[in-house]
Amino acid sequence: MLNKPRARRGLMLILSGPSGAGKTVLTRLLLAEYKDMELSVSMTTRVPRPSEVDGEHYHFVGEDAFRTMAENGEFLEWAEVFGAYYGTPRAAVEDALANGRDVLFDIDWQGAQQLKQSAASDLVKVFVLPPSLEELEARLRKRDQDSEKVITDRMARARDEISHWGEYHYVIVNEDVEKSMNDLRAILAAERRLRKRQPWLNDFVRNLIQPF
Amino acid sequence: MLNKPRARRGLMLILSGPSGAGKTVLTRLLLAEYKDMELSVSMTTRVPRPSEVDGEHYHFVGEDAFRTMAENGEFLEWAEVFGAYYGTPRAAVEDALANGRDVLFDIDWQGAQQLKQSAASDLVKVFVLPPSLEELEARLRKRDQDSEKVITDRMARARDEISHWGEYHYVIVNEDVEKSMNDLRAILAAERRLRKRQPWLNDFVRNLIQPF
Repeated sequence: MLNKPRARRGLMLILSGPSGAGKTVLTRLLLAEYKDMELSVSMTTRVPRPSEVDGEHYHFVGEDAFRTMAENGEFLEWAEVFGAYYGTPRAAVEDALANGRDVLFDIDWQGAQQLKQSAASDLVKVFVLPPSLEELEARLRKRDQDSEKVITDRMARARDEISHWGEYHYVIVNEDVEKSMNDLRAILAAERRLRKRQPWLNDFVRNLIQPF
Repeated sequence: MLNKPRARRGLMLILSGPSGAGKTVLTRLLLAEYKDMELSVSMTTRVPRPSEVDGEHYHFVGEDAFRTMAENGEFLEWAEVFGAYYGTPRAAVEDALANGRDVLFDIDWQGAQQLKQSAASDLVKVFVLPPSLEELEARLRKRDQDSEKVITDRMARARDEISHWGEYHYVIVNEDVEKSMNDLRAILAAERRLRKRQPWLNDFVRNLIQPF
C-alpha cells in the first residue's frame, strides 16, 4: 500500500502585481529552481514581435484556428485585446497538473479572474507588491527620456493593478528577492501538501478503513 | 510605512486523527518548537481525574458557571458528553489570535466541525493518519492484557474517526515524526503568510495607492 507512488496533482501558481514589483525576476528564479514547474505559454493571433519566439513567448496562430479552439472549449480562458485574441490552451495545463507538474502564470488581475472561473481549486494566487511608492516610481522611471505623461500613465496602471490585491490568497511585499523566494518556497511546500492535491490518499484511506 | 509592525493574526491549528496516529507526540513537539503557539485548554464540568491539573488539562468549573457562559456566547463551541459539559472559551482564543499567537487544538472530527461554525477562516485543519492498518492495530494493542473486544472497539472508533479525513485541509501520513514535523512546518509557514492573516497589509496598500 505504501509502495504505491504518491502522485500529487499539480497546481496553477499565479503571480500578479504591477510592473515594477519584480514579478519577472521571481518567475525566472522559480523556473530555475523548480524543475517540476513550467511557464504557461498563451496562444495569440497577434503578429509576433521581432524578438518573440513561437512556443516560448506565445503560440502564434491564425484567427480561424483560434476561433475553432474557442468554440470547442479548448481554452481555460480567452479574451480579445486591441483586436487580437489571447487564450490559455486547456490541454497543456490539464496535462501538466495531472502529471504532478505546476504551471506558473505571470498575468494581471483580469487574467486571474478569468482563470478562476474554470480552475478555482487548482489556483494559488500570489500578489507581488513593491516595498514603497517611491521605490515603485523609481523602478517605473526606467529611462531619463520618458515624459512625465508616460510616468503618470504607468503609475495609474500600477495603482489599478494594486487595487485588486484583495483577490489573492497570498501577498508578498518584494523588498528583498531572497526573502520573497523564501515566502514562495513556503507557499509551494504547503500548497503541494493540501489534501485535494494528493489524489493517492483516496486509495490509501480506503485500504486503511476497510473492515478486517 | 515599512517601519510599522507587521502584526499577523494568529491561526487555529486543529490536529485530528485516530488514537494511534501520533497526534500527542506532534502536539508536544509543535508546542516545544513554536513559542508563539499555545494549546487550547477546554472548560468542563466533569470531575477532575487524579492526574489532571486545573488550567492545564482542563479548566474545571461548576455547572451554573458553565451554563451562564454558554448563554452569554462565551464559548466558540460546547457540547454535552455523558452528562458533563465541555467547551472552548472564546476569549482566550480571540485574545491569542489578535496578538499573533496560534492556538493548537487536539480534538476529534466532531469538535472540528463545531469550531468550523464560529471560526472557519481562522482554522487550519490537519488530519493525521497512521502509515498502515497493521501499524495502527499494533499501536492500539498497547497492553497484552487487553481483550479482543477492547481492541475491536478501538479499531472501530479509529475507523470512524478516519472516515472524516475528507473534511480537513491537509492530511499527514505519520510514518516518521521528523518528516511529519517538516510537513507541519511548511503548512504553518505558508498559512501564516496568507493575506487574510496579515491585517497590516490594509494600511500598507492604502498608502501605496494613494494619489500623489
